[in-house]
Amino acid sequence: MKIARFRADRRTAFGVVEGEEVVEIRGSIYSRFRKTDIRYGLAKVKLLPPSEAPQIWCPGANFADRLKLAERSWDASSPARLEHPEPWRKGVNALTGPEDPIVIPKDSLGEVHFEGEVVAVIAKACRRVTPQQAPKYILGYTCGNDVSERDWQKEDRSPWRSKGADSFAPVGPWVETDVDPQRLELIVRVNGQEVQHACTKDMRFSFAQIVSYISQQVTLRPGDLVFSGSSGATGALRPGDVVEVEVPSVGLLRNPVVAEFDSSK
Amino acid sequence: MKIARFRADRRTAFGVVEGEEVVEIRGSIYSRFRKTDIRYGLAKVKLLPPSEAPQIWCPGANFADRLKLAERSWDASSPARLEHPEPWRKGVNALTGPEDPIVIPKDSLGEVHFEGEVVAVIAKACRRVTPQQAPKYILGYTCGNDVSERDWQKEDRSPWRSKGADSFAPVGPWVETDVDPQRLELIVRVNGQEVQHACTKDMRFSFAQIVSYISQQVTLRPGDLVFSGSSGATGALRPGDVVEVEVPSVGLLRNPVVAEFDSSK
Repeated sequence: MKIARFRADRRTAFGVVEGEEVVEIRGSIYSRFRKTDIRYGLAKVKLLPPSEAPQIWCPGANFADRLKLAERSWDASSPARLEHPEPWRKGVNALTGPEDPIVIPKDSLGEVHFEGEVVAVIAKACRRVTPQQAPKYILGYTCGNDVSERDWQKEDRSPWRSKGADSFAPVGPWVETDVDPQRLELIVRVNGQEVQHACTKDMRFSFAQIVSYISQQVTLRPGDLVFSGSSGATGALRPGDVVEVEVPSVGLLRNPVVAEFDSSK
Repeated sequence: MKIARFRADRRTAFGVVEGEEVVEIRGSIYSRFRKTDIRYGLAKVKLLPPSEAPQIWCPGANFADRLKLAERSWDASSPARLEHPEPWRKGVNALTGPEDPIVIPKDSLGEVHFEGEVVAVIAKACRRVTPQQAPKYILGYTCGNDVSERDWQKEDRSPWRSKGADSFAPVGPWVETDVDPQRLELIVRVNGQEVQHACTKDMRFSFAQIVSYISQQVTLRPGDLVFSGSSGATGALRPGDVVEVEVPSVGLLRNPVVAEFDSSK
């Protein structure tokens, strides 16, 4: 089942996507809901990020190739605890939806990169769950882009702006509840050209392992997002580009890239 | 004016503290509100964290003595951009209120430290504001404790658990709207004994400078919290301790310390 969050007739609602339509629901996507008689053509609604995430979680380098890249930038004294998922948080101010613009900040030197990822959506509050229990706390999966400013990533002591500037977390188009999370293909395209291709079977830590690990010290809440980590090389986005993150069995997240308005120019 | 968030009669409400009473309000503390006729004795209500913070912001070492300590743990290749506030975020899952227990995680080796701080509460969404404009976007000030697990702080690549474990962000007891934020005295006591004493005039970056800096890349939202940073030496908390963070012109935040229940023992 595909669960979308959308705006139509000046209201925000949740719905189930059926073909080219979305059927509005009553109730909570995290517990119980029923379909109503209200239907909209998908083309007539504005899709929103599928959750108003209380928090956005990401693992440290979670694919072998990214880990190798990351290690190059670590010095000998740097902590390198590779036996853990090394979670960190993306700012929720960065959250944005399908077709919303990724805004290149005017102070950026230009190295704003895409990072296509699969994203788990938490369904129920969880604390100290095992990897075996974790899937019961996950609603489903969607597509995400961990947009990253590479110069700030090197300069700063935290990813507050390198990974957390406004618009740096596009997520969507909806949550697919019936997929095997560790068998998902992921394709990223810039202007129609494939730039990343990965499969979640290659994640160093599975979604269940990441969720279990975070839940040892933190209560995860309904709507929290958990990114997969990214694989392969990334590249800089330019104003005018269009980025697509596609998980064929889930859906396609598309975002145009624009430059921030610079009143000083 | 002191604005509190509280629970009474199984409802959550905001109110204005007058002497030993809290007068319930209607409207939004961030825009316009009026007092109602409903009054409670302060001793009869459960005070909550004064905001349901969308995000909790902290500066990097923001007092000269803490900066010196931090620098010792940085190696030569480590980025040390001291000309910026170096913001980072505490997890909102960690937020907790006055009199709520600080829970020492059962996996901690025992070095869970207090860090008493003054906390600004954002009133209005702000983006790209100057330090001169920033005060207009701040509702007022409260007390906070940036509880920190020192071993995890060294081990991990992000502060997700060292500063973000559940209960590691006590904030309260209310927001004082009429104080000079850079002339606030701060006293921390453990079991009645003074362990920290600071003044916000010694902050390397003022609240206005921190808010302005964050707002260059991030939209701050009503209820977002901005910590001052801590000054002086900190020490480990033990189960049974009681920590007080007092800002005399604002109020006093008190929290007991407990050990997490360990079912394996």
